[in-house]
Amino acid sequence: MSMNTFGRVFRFTTWGESHGPALGAVVDGCPPGLSISEEVLQPFMDARKPGQNKFTTQRREADEVKILSGVFEGRTTGTPISLMIENTDQRSKDYSEVAQAYRPGHADYAYDAKYGFRDYRGGGRSSARETAARVAAGAVARLVVPEVTITAYVSEIGGDEIDRSAFDASEISRNPFFCPDPVAAKRWETLVDNARKDGSSLGAVVECLVEGVPAGWGAPLYAKLDADLASAMMGINAVKGVEIGDGFGAARLRGEDNADPMRPGKDGPDFLANHAGGIAGGISTGQPLVVRVAFKPTSSILIAQPTVTRNGEATKLATKGRHDPCVGIRGVPVVEAMMALVLADHKLLHRAQCG
Amino acid sequence: MSMNTFGRVFRFTTWGESHGPALGAVVDGCPPGLSISEEVLQPFMDARKPGQNKFTTQRREADEVKILSGVFEGRTTGTPISLMIENTDQRSKDYSEVAQAYRPGHADYAYDAKYGFRDYRGGGRSSARETAARVAAGAVARLVVPEVTITAYVSEIGGDEIDRSAFDASEISRNPFFCPDPVAAKRWETLVDNARKDGSSLGAVVECLVEGVPAGWGAPLYAKLDADLASAMMGINAVKGVEIGDGFGAARLRGEDNADPMRPGKDGPDFLANHAGGIAGGISTGQPLVVRVAFKPTSSILIAQPTVTRNGEATKLATKGRHDPCVGIRGVPVVEAMMALVLADHKLLHRAQCG
Amino acid sequence: MSMNTFGRVFRFTTWGESHGPALGAVVDGCPPGLSISEEVLQPFMDARKPGQNKFTTQRREADEVKILSGVFEGRTTGTPISLMIENTDQRSKDYSEVAQAYRPGHADYAYDAKYGFRDYRGGGRSSARETAARVAAGAVARLVVPEVTITAYVSEIGGDEIDRSAFDASEISRNPFFCPDPVAAKRWETLVDNARKDGSSLGAVVECLVEGVPAGWGAPLYAKLDADLASAMMGINAVKGVEIGDGFGAARLRGEDNADPMRPGKDGPDFLANHAGGIAGGISTGQPLVVRVAFKPTSSILIAQPTVTRNGEATKLATKGRHDPCVGIRGVPVVEAMMALVLADHKLLHRAQCG
Amino acid sequence: MSMNTFGRVFRFTTWGESHGPALGAVVDGCPPGLSISEEVLQPFMDARKPGQNKFTTQRREADEVKILSGVFEGRTTGTPISLMIENTDQRSKDYSEVAQAYRPGHADYAYDAKYGFRDYRGGGRSSARETAARVAAGAVARLVVPEVTITAYVSEIGGDEIDRSAFDASEISRNPFFCPDPVAAKRWETLVDNARKDGSSLGAVVECLVEGVPAGWGAPLYAKLDADLASAMMGINAVKGVEIGDGFGAARLRGEDNADPMRPGKDGPDFLANHAGGIAGGISTGQPLVVRVAFKPTSSILIAQPTVTRNGEATKLATKGRHDPCVGIRGVPVVEAMMALVLADHKLLHRAQCG
Repeated sequence: MSMNTFGRVFRFTTWGESHGPALGAVVDGCPPGLSISEEVLQPFMDARKPGQNKFTTQRREADEVKILSGVFEGRTTGTPISLMIENTDQRSKDYSEVAQAYRPGHADYAYDAKYGFRDYRGGGRSSARETAARVAAGAVARLVVPEVTITAYVSEIGGDEIDRSAFDASEISRNPFFCPDPVAAKRWETLVDNARKDGSSLGAVVECLVEGVPAGWGAPLYAKLDADLASAMMGINAVKGVEIGDGFGAARLRGEDNADPMRPGKDGPDFLANHAGGIAGGISTGQPLVVRVAFKPTSSILIAQPTVTRNGEATKLATKGRHDPCVGIRGVPVVEAMMALVLADHKLLHRAQCG
Repeated sequence: MSMNTFGRVFRFTTWGESHGPALGAVVDGCPPGLSISEEVLQPFMDARKPGQNKFTTQRREADEVKILSGVFEGRTTGTPISLMIENTDQRSKDYSEVAQAYRPGHADYAYDAKYGFRDYRGGGRSSARETAARVAAGAVARLVVPEVTITAYVSEIGGDEIDRSAFDASEISRNPFFCPDPVAAKRWETLVDNARKDGSSLGAVVECLVEGVPAGWGAPLYAKLDADLASAMMGINAVKGVEIGDGFGAARLRGEDNADPMRPGKDGPDFLANHAGGIAGGISTGQPLVVRVAFKPTSSILIAQPTVTRNGEATKLATKGRHDPCVGIRGVPVVEAMMALVLADHKLLHRAQCG
Repeated sequence: MSMNTFGRVFRFTTWGESHGPALGAVVDGCPPGLSISEEVLQPFMDARKPGQNKFTTQRREADEVKILSGVFEGRTTGTPISLMIENTDQRSKDYSEVAQAYRPGHADYAYDAKYGFRDYRGGGRSSARETAARVAAGAVARLVVPEVTITAYVSEIGGDEIDRSAFDASEISRNPFFCPDPVAAKRWETLVDNARKDGSSLGAVVECLVEGVPAGWGAPLYAKLDADLASAMMGINAVKGVEIGDGFGAARLRGEDNADPMRPGKDGPDFLANHAGGIAGGISTGQPLVVRVAFKPTSSILIAQPTVTRNGEATKLATKGRHDPCVGIRGVPVVEAMMALVLADHKLLHRAQCG
Repeated sequence: MSMNTFGRVFRFTTWGESHGPALGAVVDGCPPGLSISEEVLQPFMDARKPGQNKFTTQRREADEVKILSGVFEGRTTGTPISLMIENTDQRSKDYSEVAQAYRPGHADYAYDAKYGFRDYRGGGRSSARETAARVAAGAVARLVVPEVTITAYVSEIGGDEIDRSAFDASEISRNPFFCPDPVAAKRWETLVDNARKDGSSLGAVVECLVEGVPAGWGAPLYAKLDADLASAMMGINAVKGVEIGDGFGAARLRGEDNADPMRPGKDGPDFLANHAGGIAGGISTGQPLVVRVAFKPTSSILIAQPTVTRNGEATKLATKGRHDPCVGIRGVPVVEAMMALVLADHKLLHRAQCG
């Protein structure tokens, strides 16, 4: 209900701006007794961290997560877990240009129209830097759903798709693109580097596969698992589309081709296909979840574009300095985090009603 | 928070099953003093009503909406508005087969896995019939946002798209497909009728265009306007994908091609493009909203498919009797209703915080 | 969040006015598989029903509750349960006086100030008649907490208290006052009848005792069991005070006299006193819950009082016709219902977080 | 909905334990453009601060509040405001006794029963120290309702009441008891000091008077202004009772004596009495709000009491070291903070629905 809170029973609230002293998340409703420490959370922060290679922004942040509450002697106590990440590399650069003019494709104008003014330093609250807080919260959520395996990866950059027959999950961590196809990863090096050199940017598609979700999670009708996932993913910075299972592809199929027939299995039915992406009627079916998320190309590019100033005068604006040629790449750990957060919430919600 | 409630400040709760005595919605948080009557709501019900032509299911429901509370002397009082639609054509057919076996593509198995049993008559709560209650609630929501014009239409059936250069909004109500392109509508007659005769079904894409939303609606970060729209649309029966603006197409563009540059305009900036679909940073920009929704082909088809019984035995199941060859068509009024509901909520939410 | 919804996981939404066609409740989040029927719910409706003796209002309502959804073959399905009670005795009397002037002690002026106008027939939404919907919802809630025994009774009318040493729970249903002390009940007959004949009214205190709540229900800090009970009870029409355990009496005790010392017991500690009323830190301790609720005297009295008209002119107003000399009496089933609703919610909430 | 979040539109979430590194609050939904700084908030922190005289606990905390987000160039931005207060005087004393045994009157046993274990250092999350975060959030809330004047004071300690005819608001800040009657304050010095020397404690009643609330705030039926106040106040540590207006006293009045008759006034009616405490039907009437809150005597006393250990063995426990002889005194700033938080929320909620 709150604007900066997500979830129903397992909930988190984030706060912080790109250039403030810190940002953070308060995770509420976490079950007690789970083993936790800063060391358990940090690897997820590191996966999202900027400045790790030339394909992402050169801002360097340690992104060290601190636990300020809710943990005692290495275990969650059931009380709110406050997580804080200090900002360390917010450069004191000259913001006078951005303060006065609206960057096309950014939230600058919308924030001004809504609130009357805005914290223009690095995009303020609308900065993708906020996703650090989600990743921290998501790392806690994972502890709540140890039965599931969440695997996100980039399946497409600038329209260049992976070869699904070459899918190898172990490759994902071996290249800077979270790419499961080593040949595509090779191509993307050139692709992304060229975009970077051009001062341009590329869009991407992130796919997320989840195994281990039992049948029965999801709360129809307006807290359906797919609806909550759509909200979670569409709310990530730069996301413009979400699909479950065959998604838009399903709209082009005939009924008999889109069916997921069943045959008797060991524990419940064995599905012969998974066009539905593991969700029917808003409830998990026990099949793997499949979600696809479209990231637009980074709006901050070095190519000047026409825009207007706060006073309504015409001007041109190009991003200066650090720049992320494909923001979708760094979306991978964020998609995983949001997935974990939705699943933790639905697991507990299901337990509330169905015991 | 509640599973059958949607919205934050302007909220509605729906109830009812396909074959119960009635279904309905309680609309809460509606501003007082709005002119309302059953006659004002009924046309929206009629647009969604089944059985109006051979391209939709032959179930015949009057779908008369009754106002039971919250209205006095033709005006909303600010108290909850209870809307009820009685079921009149729930045929007492033989449900023994569906009671025992899971229909592929339906929520049957998922409901059983979640709740232990289910109301199998006509799909129970998971029936698309529930959308009648949303349409009724949506008709109330429209009264809250008289400044906006919501236009949804089918842009694609079974992969056959409209010609956008032939777009004519006045055509939408002139054919049974809510199609803005009369030539495509002609083609779809054959397409859908053939699918119907084959006992098969087709998917569709519904597009929704909204004019009149001022800049500033939307509540970052976790009640973003786009995130709420994604949740609203993905929660409609048979929906598998949602796009805002260019959606997945944006993932294939370069930064400079996806930008929405601005120039000085009369009230705020004039945008030179609308790749963003009217939303940046989760907040409306004042441009038209553009949302696209993918409907899978109807799961109920006359072609038998392998499945399992509740006891885990193999069987085959085909839908008998009435059948909707393209459920996406009837999704149009539902998409419009959900759009109105989200916008009403965000208008009031914006007013709460920003006066 | 919604104004007419109560609860977090087990939630209900009520709707309806005193003189509309019906009123009702939608109960959401109810666990599946519970045995339920209209016959199971009706006795609770009957206990609250007006017109049963000369000590309560003479409005006669059958108060028959109908189940419209959420139940299949005698069991809850886990989907929303829609309950409806038709209004049958809303007399078409002349409301012109009440339409024009504000009844002192009523919500008339406040509603007008908030909404700009009001449904003045019988108090509209602010009528105590709405509590019928809460009682219906409460009857469902009881099914969720079969382990608890909820016993409410009147402990005081017009300042005349029961003799606690004479407490006999079996007496409660034997007199029209829900009084556990037959001697006090006898006195109250005269007391209330005199007030009735005078055209006046009396206040009352309702006490509620709950046995069987295990230690551990309650969700600190802002959904504490006592905070939620305070909200639930203070929201009942005519209630002006709520106490847990010793309540205001505790403010007059010294620390050592207010302590609830413990000694070893069979399952957890044995408490040697219960000043806390079964709740510590917002969480149940396993002791009986004790809640006390103060009802003001009915505001509708036959004695004329100075007031103003909608146009701001001085006038005098006396209630005409049917009149309830002590509204607190009929508060007993409502207090029980709200207790059941809060406990059902907290049981499920506890299960969500703590398994 | 979340357990550690309070409010509907203007919301805050608190986190932190007595002996953790810090505690804090995230305030969400605050309107943009309000002048704010740490200096504006600090005086409210100072009023609640412990260790200021011998009548409150000797724990010494600077209680310096830091703003970590949501503020830019001295104004609120409309994004979440993160407030942090570092703990500086959490003495590393020996907690082995409290770790093993349950302090009577405390939440120790209830927390263990709920969560399986607890952070026993200084009461962990159940410590009254958490109210520092509420006071910080409340100081922000005051900025949202500049039209209201909130005045809380102690009206009774250990059963010794103030003389209402001697009420002088300017006295409240002149004595360590927030007492508006200087003669009573004198008596309380002896009273409280004696309790302190005895190692005992006293209960208290805090009264809160609010002027400036316009008619129309409050959201019937389940977010009534009085119901929300009851929840807010009952959720404060050590509170066992809440009254609005005449409260339990109203239960002893006759209808004609409890009426608040009206006569024509300048802006709306002039009320001739205020038994209702400024709220009718859950909506403010424009009269002053009057709320009374009962605090039990501090549970931590130096007098040993029988209790049990975690292993179920009998033992005796007395609090050692620092001790607060009347926790109600320090409740005054907390009651004011909760009042401000509820009013800010209801002002915005009213604006959402009624413009």
